[in-house]
Amino acid sequence: MSQRPFSTSAFREAARGLAATGRRIYANGWSPATSSNYSQRLNEDYAAVTCSGKDKGLLNEGDIMVVDMAGQPATEGKPSAETLLHTQLYRRQAQVGAVLHTHSHASTVLTMHWPANSLSLEGYELLKALEGITTHDSRLTLPVFENTQDIASLADQVDTAMADGRISHAYLIRGHGLYTWASDLAACYRQLEALETLLAIELDRRRLSGV
Amino acid sequence: MSQRPFSTSAFREAARGLAATGRRIYANGWSPATSSNYSQRLNEDYAAVTCSGKDKGLLNEGDIMVVDMAGQPATEGKPSAETLLHTQLYRRQAQVGAVLHTHSHASTVLTMHWPANSLSLEGYELLKALEGITTHDSRLTLPVFENTQDIASLADQVDTAMADGRISHAYLIRGHGLYTWASDLAACYRQLEALETLLAIELDRRRLSGV
Amino acid sequence: MSQRPFSTSAFREAARGLAATGRRIYANGWSPATSSNYSQRLNEDYAAVTCSGKDKGLLNEGDIMVVDMAGQPATEGKPSAETLLHTQLYRRQAQVGAVLHTHSHASTVLTMHWPANSLSLEGYELLKALEGITTHDSRLTLPVFENTQDIASLADQVDTAMADGRISHAYLIRGHGLYTWASDLAACYRQLEALETLLAIELDRRRLSGV
Amino acid sequence: MSQRPFSTSAFREAARGLAATGRRIYANGWSPATSSNYSQRLNEDYAAVTCSGKDKGLLNEGDIMVVDMAGQPATEGKPSAETLLHTQLYRRQAQVGAVLHTHSHASTVLTMHWPANSLSLEGYELLKALEGITTHDSRLTLPVFENTQDIASLADQVDTAMADGRISHAYLIRGHGLYTWASDLAACYRQLEALETLLAIELDRRRLSGV
Repeated sequence: MSQRPFSTSAFREAARGLAATGRRIYANGWSPATSSNYSQRLNEDYAAVTCSGKDKGLLNEGDIMVVDMAGQPATEGKPSAETLLHTQLYRRQAQVGAVLHTHSHASTVLTMHWPANSLSLEGYELLKALEGITTHDSRLTLPVFENTQDIASLADQVDTAMADGRISHAYLIRGHGLYTWASDLAACYRQLEALETLLAIELDRRRLSGV
Repeated sequence: MSQRPFSTSAFREAARGLAATGRRIYANGWSPATSSNYSQRLNEDYAAVTCSGKDKGLLNEGDIMVVDMAGQPATEGKPSAETLLHTQLYRRQAQVGAVLHTHSHASTVLTMHWPANSLSLEGYELLKALEGITTHDSRLTLPVFENTQDIASLADQVDTAMADGRISHAYLIRGHGLYTWASDLAACYRQLEALETLLAIELDRRRLSGV
Repeated sequence: MSQRPFSTSAFREAARGLAATGRRIYANGWSPATSSNYSQRLNEDYAAVTCSGKDKGLLNEGDIMVVDMAGQPATEGKPSAETLLHTQLYRRQAQVGAVLHTHSHASTVLTMHWPANSLSLEGYELLKALEGITTHDSRLTLPVFENTQDIASLADQVDTAMADGRISHAYLIRGHGLYTWASDLAACYRQLEALETLLAIELDRRRLSGV
Repeated sequence: MSQRPFSTSAFREAARGLAATGRRIYANGWSPATSSNYSQRLNEDYAAVTCSGKDKGLLNEGDIMVVDMAGQPATEGKPSAETLLHTQLYRRQAQVGAVLHTHSHASTVLTMHWPANSLSLEGYELLKALEGITTHDSRLTLPVFENTQDIASLADQVDTAMADGRISHAYLIRGHGLYTWASDLAACYRQLEALETLLAIELDRRRLSGV
């Protein structure tokens, strides 16, 4: 089966967009210490993704490369170790256009302090920033996966959960961070800002409730 | 009844001011994920208002449009879904020159954790940043409305409460955010900074008090 | 008794320095909503001081004016309402070269939650950033004055407390903020950063201790 | 025993890197009030280090000087009072290329509130940002030394603890801050971001646990 070639100009545009988005994410404190990775779909067969180990506060176009949907490099560079968690999403859902992964304070504390394997956000106006949600009177459930260094295995677990309809907009990895995806990069960044803001709010409310 | 035409140069100036103010508000973290909306009165019949769904961190003049006091577009664009909450204020009070609405952490936590239908701020020097308040020895009460996607109905509730003298400088919507207004945009932004700062302080004091 | 004229170039240099310092203070969140005021001594008889009601995030040279040591304007402009708290310090201590006043979250919460009329900071390495302190093994006591809109009366209270040796580097006003002073503006800003950082740390420690 | 001369261009490059890194650290709030010091090895016998008392938010090349491994100046300037804590590391471990020291909120609160003489970080994905750590399933123990103004004595204590294998990537000084080191400046800064982020997370988790 041959792969459809990607457009060089589409790659360049994606690289510029991902680098600018990454610098914003870093400025919010959600991608410290070269952690995190971001990607954008180029076509059915390829995606632009951050190279491994780049400083997200200094991210630039040259730090972005192309991989195929098996996570294999299609341009020079070493892709992020978690590339398979990105390609899993692109393969599973044709409408996914971008994926953002962060390592925030709130997602780490929430998943380390509470042993639950899911976390729900409910009743917030800001939920409307998520694709397809039109009222605050909604409940979003984020599964929490146990952390592992076996990324292929984690990708399989996520894929199974999605096949079973147990994941909608995002998931968490314990002590690690958040994955979210949307139809394009702007929508995905909007969704990420909403989710990180709501996770910090949720953490603060739980602190007040002494739950 | 004919409407007095608005001045194009006044609109441009308002658009520049609203965009710059919006970027400051975003930088403070009070308008994440394309949430929030801002407006400035042009004359008796028209106001400049943010278009729907814009990224407030990247807000520019082109993201601002004109509506009449019924919330109908008078220039190209799709006005914010909450435009009627702005026009309600301009219609109710001739001295209102600008309206700012935010979705902050503190206002969300305060209205989600405590079920009360009002919140008071008292004894703070910073209250003097609000129009007409000249001493810290003041008590400001902010009504808390329940959130709804029926903006026309919410605008009616606010209008009734204002007619009854139950709202002075601002109000809150539960799990959603803050609305505040003043005679001009600079005064309104000053008031917003004071209120958001005081809400965060109030939240911290309640946390300490274990109320 | 005639007053020694001030140098115009010294005033300009002071205005540039105060404006740049004010923008840094605002960026730290310690001077929201046009609150706070800053000054620098020009000579025995005059000081440069912020005009009343300026947005500290946009502070520029034109927002600074000159007053004499009775707080009377010596250049165009309306001085800050709290100018007498600055001139009191310049009159009391010949070695005071700059005064900075802020309205921070930590100083407001600490003085509103705890009714004590003083607050001590002890054992912190960062105390060494204060003029004359050379070891962490020090104890700094900040008096807390009750807030009032009668600034002349407050200035008298402070002056009496200083005459009695009850104030060294800084004092607090309840629900209002911090005053600190030093031999020059750079030292005063360093001292302010240390004090605001330590007040936030102290607040956090008290929260943990449940005192 | 003669010392190998250092390269002037290497010094300039180190000075630029240290200044840029320092401004980033300051922007994160970890080096307030002229506190902290940073260094980079030039060769076996010399290191570039921050001069004493510089404002880290305004740090520039001119604020960096050269010392030998006994902490004696090799270029003009007064080295940081804690220079011996840097040179101790360069002498002890040939692979140490850079040392960063900070005074953060989290490290101060953690070491002042809890009297323990060590602090462990365990199970965090972000631990992988530290040199030689390849899985979240790791435990990093940071010794906590008592603060002192006798830097030579503290350097001896650290040296003994390192000789005994009781320190790997970093240590804390009570009420003072963090020291960390790595093979080069970029790796050291990455490690610092990871550690400061994890210390803030650890503090928040302990607060929730009420330990």
